[in-house]
Amino acid sequence: MNHPAANYGVHSEVGTLRKVLVCAPGLSHERLTPSNCHELLFDDVLWVDNAVRDHFDFMTVMRDRGIEVVELHQVLAETMSDPVAKSWLLDRKIIANEVGLGLVEDTRAYLDGLDPRTLATLLIGGLSTMDLPDDFRPGYVSLARESLGGREYLMPPLPNTLYTRDTTSWIYGGLTLNPLYWPARRDETLLMKAIYGFHPDFVGANVIWGDPEQDWRLSTLEGGDVMVPGNGVVLLGMSERTSRQAISQVAQRLFVDGIAEQVIVAGLPKLRAAMHLDTVFTFADVDCVTVYPTIVDSIHTFTLRPADNAIGMDVVEEKDSFLDVVEAALGLSELRVVETGGGVYATERQQWDDANNLVALEPGVVVAYDRNTTTNALLRDAGIEVIEIVGAELGRGRGGGHCMTCPLIREPVAY
Amino acid sequence: MNHPAANYGVHSEVGTLRKVLVCAPGLSHERLTPSNCHELLFDDVLWVDNAVRDHFDFMTVMRDRGIEVVELHQVLAETMSDPVAKSWLLDRKIIANEVGLGLVEDTRAYLDGLDPRTLATLLIGGLSTMDLPDDFRPGYVSLARESLGGREYLMPPLPNTLYTRDTTSWIYGGLTLNPLYWPARRDETLLMKAIYGFHPDFVGANVIWGDPEQDWRLSTLEGGDVMVPGNGVVLLGMSERTSRQAISQVAQRLFVDGIAEQVIVAGLPKLRAAMHLDTVFTFADVDCVTVYPTIVDSIHTFTLRPADNAIGMDVVEEKDSFLDVVEAALGLSELRVVETGGGVYATERQQWDDANNLVALEPGVVVAYDRNTTTNALLRDAGIEVIEIVGAELGRGRGGGHCMTCPLIREPVAY
Amino acid sequence: MNHPAANYGVHSEVGTLRKVLVCAPGLSHERLTPSNCHELLFDDVLWVDNAVRDHFDFMTVMRDRGIEVVELHQVLAETMSDPVAKSWLLDRKIIANEVGLGLVEDTRAYLDGLDPRTLATLLIGGLSTMDLPDDFRPGYVSLARESLGGREYLMPPLPNTLYTRDTTSWIYGGLTLNPLYWPARRDETLLMKAIYGFHPDFVGANVIWGDPEQDWRLSTLEGGDVMVPGNGVVLLGMSERTSRQAISQVAQRLFVDGIAEQVIVAGLPKLRAAMHLDTVFTFADVDCVTVYPTIVDSIHTFTLRPADNAIGMDVVEEKDSFLDVVEAALGLSELRVVETGGGVYATERQQWDDANNLVALEPGVVVAYDRNTTTNALLRDAGIEVIEIVGAELGRGRGGGHCMTCPLIREPVAY
Amino acid sequence: MNHPAANYGVHSEVGTLRKVLVCAPGLSHERLTPSNCHELLFDDVLWVDNAVRDHFDFMTVMRDRGIEVVELHQVLAETMSDPVAKSWLLDRKIIANEVGLGLVEDTRAYLDGLDPRTLATLLIGGLSTMDLPDDFRPGYVSLARESLGGREYLMPPLPNTLYTRDTTSWIYGGLTLNPLYWPARRDETLLMKAIYGFHPDFVGANVIWGDPEQDWRLSTLEGGDVMVPGNGVVLLGMSERTSRQAISQVAQRLFVDGIAEQVIVAGLPKLRAAMHLDTVFTFADVDCVTVYPTIVDSIHTFTLRPADNAIGMDVVEEKDSFLDVVEAALGLSELRVVETGGGVYATERQQWDDANNLVALEPGVVVAYDRNTTTNALLRDAGIEVIEIVGAELGRGRGGGHCMTCPLIREPVAY
Repeated sequence: MNHPAANYGVHSEVGTLRKVLVCAPGLSHERLTPSNCHELLFDDVLWVDNAVRDHFDFMTVMRDRGIEVVELHQVLAETMSDPVAKSWLLDRKIIANEVGLGLVEDTRAYLDGLDPRTLATLLIGGLSTMDLPDDFRPGYVSLARESLGGREYLMPPLPNTLYTRDTTSWIYGGLTLNPLYWPARRDETLLMKAIYGFHPDFVGANVIWGDPEQDWRLSTLEGGDVMVPGNGVVLLGMSERTSRQAISQVAQRLFVDGIAEQVIVAGLPKLRAAMHLDTVFTFADVDCVTVYPTIVDSIHTFTLRPADNAIGMDVVEEKDSFLDVVEAALGLSELRVVETGGGVYATERQQWDDANNLVALEPGVVVAYDRNTTTNALLRDAGIEVIEIVGAELGRGRGGGHCMTCPLIREPVAY
Repeated sequence: MNHPAANYGVHSEVGTLRKVLVCAPGLSHERLTPSNCHELLFDDVLWVDNAVRDHFDFMTVMRDRGIEVVELHQVLAETMSDPVAKSWLLDRKIIANEVGLGLVEDTRAYLDGLDPRTLATLLIGGLSTMDLPDDFRPGYVSLARESLGGREYLMPPLPNTLYTRDTTSWIYGGLTLNPLYWPARRDETLLMKAIYGFHPDFVGANVIWGDPEQDWRLSTLEGGDVMVPGNGVVLLGMSERTSRQAISQVAQRLFVDGIAEQVIVAGLPKLRAAMHLDTVFTFADVDCVTVYPTIVDSIHTFTLRPADNAIGMDVVEEKDSFLDVVEAALGLSELRVVETGGGVYATERQQWDDANNLVALEPGVVVAYDRNTTTNALLRDAGIEVIEIVGAELGRGRGGGHCMTCPLIREPVAY
Repeated sequence: MNHPAANYGVHSEVGTLRKVLVCAPGLSHERLTPSNCHELLFDDVLWVDNAVRDHFDFMTVMRDRGIEVVELHQVLAETMSDPVAKSWLLDRKIIANEVGLGLVEDTRAYLDGLDPRTLATLLIGGLSTMDLPDDFRPGYVSLARESLGGREYLMPPLPNTLYTRDTTSWIYGGLTLNPLYWPARRDETLLMKAIYGFHPDFVGANVIWGDPEQDWRLSTLEGGDVMVPGNGVVLLGMSERTSRQAISQVAQRLFVDGIAEQVIVAGLPKLRAAMHLDTVFTFADVDCVTVYPTIVDSIHTFTLRPADNAIGMDVVEEKDSFLDVVEAALGLSELRVVETGGGVYATERQQWDDANNLVALEPGVVVAYDRNTTTNALLRDAGIEVIEIVGAELGRGRGGGHCMTCPLIREPVAY
Repeated sequence: MNHPAANYGVHSEVGTLRKVLVCAPGLSHERLTPSNCHELLFDDVLWVDNAVRDHFDFMTVMRDRGIEVVELHQVLAETMSDPVAKSWLLDRKIIANEVGLGLVEDTRAYLDGLDPRTLATLLIGGLSTMDLPDDFRPGYVSLARESLGGREYLMPPLPNTLYTRDTTSWIYGGLTLNPLYWPARRDETLLMKAIYGFHPDFVGANVIWGDPEQDWRLSTLEGGDVMVPGNGVVLLGMSERTSRQAISQVAQRLFVDGIAEQVIVAGLPKLRAAMHLDTVFTFADVDCVTVYPTIVDSIHTFTLRPADNAIGMDVVEEKDSFLDVVEAALGLSELRVVETGGGVYATERQQWDDANNLVALEPGVVVAYDRNTTTNALLRDAGIEVIEIVGAELGRGRGGGHCMTCPLIREPVAY
């Protein structure tokens, strides 16, 4: 088959996971320091060696279940071994507006001479002026080093690639290349466009919305706000990071292309603790979710459905709670709810530590961080199999198993 | 003459000012509140009526000296009376990525029905969903109001238009349409492009760099960092807001077009108190500057000169102080320096209150805020005529006379 | 009469004001800079000369109505002309724990040699190590200047004395010497204890609670949370700055001493905009209040009444709104309410600018800042006489006429 | 012997450690949440179970070397089994200024009925109104719960007891009961006074300075700024938390009592990364220290020595670097220096992760966190034996082995 990605698609939140994209920690996280981590959206610095080990365990857990795990550095390196792909990407990264006028040629020459694996490492991990060998250092570099101190970047580090969930989203058989909210993350989507454009395993995807080469202004979408429970339903969090401007465009495409029949919009408060829908709400089984009630109870819910009007859809402001609207949309007699566990202190702490950010490997089988002991116990009481991974380092960017996975192929479930 | 702007040009910092662009306070400042003013880059809320009065006095001071003062609401209204100009601008402002899919048509219909003056007021002052009359409110507006609380904008307010200095810069006979640092300000440049593109008094300008319809990424330039002292010299502050990526591109164009012979780059520390070069350094006379020594003494200076190499210029890291480099470049035997006045407390306070942010109307005649009494006294001791305007409200966005003026025609001085 | 303060007392919020304590701006505000103003609880720096002028106008407005206006620098200077008072105060201010071991004797010697007026200026305005003349500088001062940069204080500046309302409170015939919330303000109360202890016009006051020489820990009370409407009722804001620990102690003393029959506690949210009850609620007339509805509507109200139990009082959590509880307590058929004026933006801005922080000079006559034009217009519509003073500088510490006045004698009103 | 603590004393930084006080994590850390951890001085929340395990390993490492490890909950429980001690402490904790007027009796009655171990747990872990059983809940509790939300404390949690280093300091044979900088920590010293006053193993200590029952105002001292290298020398960091007012008083007592002959003051910049001297500088061996050069190179050094003047000491501002002054004071021919390891990013990260915060068990044997791999490797290269403990949770309050230990008996070393 010429177009392998034509088989990609995510048809549920908990159906059997067949193929998934992740990104191992690495060089970009070695660049995090107490003084720069916040602008790179991390709350603290990581012990990178241990983060790598814990992430490897996470990949192993999935591989042991027969899931095909694709790692971003690996596929990007494979993509960069294609000279056309490499030129395409570097033509868009190494430009005067990014690296500075006098540094384009030398920087490009240096990168052109690298092997694909090293190049992939720098594309994700960043290239600082200090990294440039002497042979590739023009006099103009003095201006560069002054302008931001000794750590000025020619290519910025992209530590949030760790959270592959956000960058691209398979919604049933359609793919979105998401315009991310923070400028610090936007180049992540460009890397993914290169992969979907050139990597032999990724070409042929049905891209329904988004293009990192356009300016989307207020239309921003992050995959942590996208859920595909099945039954023709899509859940979209409307958050600080995912705007109504994007939501309505995506919904229009889903309806026009016949990909979905109903979009439920979860209007979230603007809080760091609730940055995406999946930080307070994920599925553990076909009829079971885990929620952080403090936030989920205050969700303002809307339903979008196809209509024969100017924009092809109706907007209904719901009176019922978000959970009731989801239950009804999925045709469930009862949506079982496992709340974040523990007392008033532990609940807030566990949500912060990604207790509600589960990724299901198959119905009723989820991966969770070890530190959320009380919520994990409640999930087990509800009959869920909880596979624990170590979260001491990985969780410091505020993301769990759901954030760290971008499902490429997931089977449907029956409702 | 078909192209009046062909006569525009700024040939010095202190030569006789002939024509200047300003922007009166107004609706956009009425939208500032204690909870939103910081994201709109103001430190506090204004008493708008008084700000309008004080700004009118400022315009009158200049008009009384024979200077032609052009006000932004007025020229934008005149521009909007041209249907082509109006379509051009609204086609770029009222798009799904900004206002949201279901709101484009109604919002556009509402704006199309307005008279030019009202339209100009809303283009600068912002259009909130609450401003939309009932006839123009589709059901989709409910999503809009939820997503950002009751004050969601369909066109954002642009309160920083008050500081016309930043948006466009005449450098001798060339004009730059500046890509501004903060997303909250970027539409300011789009308004200016409409004016330079369609207003009969502005067409024909020699635009040498910048275009608000392109994405400039890290290449940002703000006019508060641009000074044109004369003698073929241009000073560019390298600050949080003006990047080396922009500086080198502008310098290249200045050298290629033969507009300037030397660019002196003032590397500033990244502090709010030093957000632009003109917050710590401005000219009061041909051979006299006012400076805030705490910052100016720490400027890291570079000189760019035309060269026959790949990027058409050399970069020299200067050993001498910024003031010495400027003195030498202008061929002055002595550059007189008036420092911010008062003791350790008053100095810091006066700089904060724009004591060093002077605008000259002619050599040795400047406009300054009344509250900077000690610095103004020192300027008078140095033989400068200081015309005072009231700064109680206007200064709350951290900008003085230099920030609030964009010279369109200023005569050269002899060095 | 030996004890003039035995005649002091505040018997209403709007009865004729006979005598009031204020504090003019001065040296302490000249020490405010953009980098230190926040730790001294000011949002911005002032133009001190204008603040002095505007405050003088405020005093004149009151004096013109026959009110005896007492200014803090003046009474403190008079107090310091008594050598016993001076020793008492300096014994408590110039101690090793404050100025440092090697600096006690020289600092004390310098202050002992000053005239009372200069001493009062420094007690309020602060004494920095730089202020110490060479003759009084031991070698140890080097350690002092290093430890906090060049502006280390031997006596801290007390810029919040401007808000005399907070420091002491007359509640009917009883006086409280308030333990203030912020350590930066605690010495204000010590100055007042010296005045009430030694000044011939102030001795003999009936102090019912509070002593700045004790450590009150979590029991903090600020006068901006104290209101005395009459009818045996006291209103106490429970805020970030006024704690339940203080409220219950004050209430106990009021009941035991028979000073009041009912204390209404207004539980405020913890927001800077609602730092005291008087920032969102004050009286304009016997039956008329001005309120900021956004906050006042969310007040959680309790009533305390004398009871024959261990702590001498009952606590009742009210179901009715705060305004209804106040109306009933005062026996009013209708409490007229003037809300902060203007639209959604102006309302928030005017509250921030102290629109609800009125001080009444007599029933129906209040002083307000000029900038709150819409709220002032609504008050006039309600028949209130509004005397305007200039707020451009005075309001930058977030306080209006109510905050800037400490009534010493105010007549009762009839309910 | 009646007075066991008469044998306590710390005579060096690296001599054989005989007895040490630590405090296990526990209830107080279970109360940390993302929204309250910063006011309790933690950067993040902990997984308490793992923190307990890792701290137990730390105690075991020391016990295995023959060191007597005393744990605070244990000694406090033993102290509380003495009814006199219990009354003494509760008389000072359960007062109206802390718990509120109506809650004193019931709270005291509840605590009086607890066994010593449970009481010790609550004294350190905090007592919230929610913890109070129904039998001990008067009506006044409603006011308490309103005033700070549902988590109001009757006794505040003391999570920083984990860092026993700060609260009390043995300096040779004298003990200081330190007045800590943050109000949130001050009750820690009160617990220690109870222990030193009543516990049979602790009575008889030679307390030379400090008393938690007094108000020390600006005189604050934290043990992380106290080092006792030997040779009659004491090092005191002058930091945000340790003031010159305290330093000069402690030095005076050390000189008067003949405990030390020289105090070296390390003037630190005010940065969170340099909150105490021991966050950037500790001893690994008799002649070997580890330092974070970015900060240590900017230390401003003073030497205090006994003198026959008013305050009994001279102050000398040193021209030499801090390290040179220390080297000379200890009579070392060479002070070996191991800097924080790694490149520009790793260095900053490792210092943040307490790489320089070593505790020596004997000369050349130190305990360090596992995550500081590069600094630990450099220490081993320098011949130091590095025993690693897990820092993933324990380090989140920004403290390592030095912070977590308060040596009670440590032998001298020869210089």
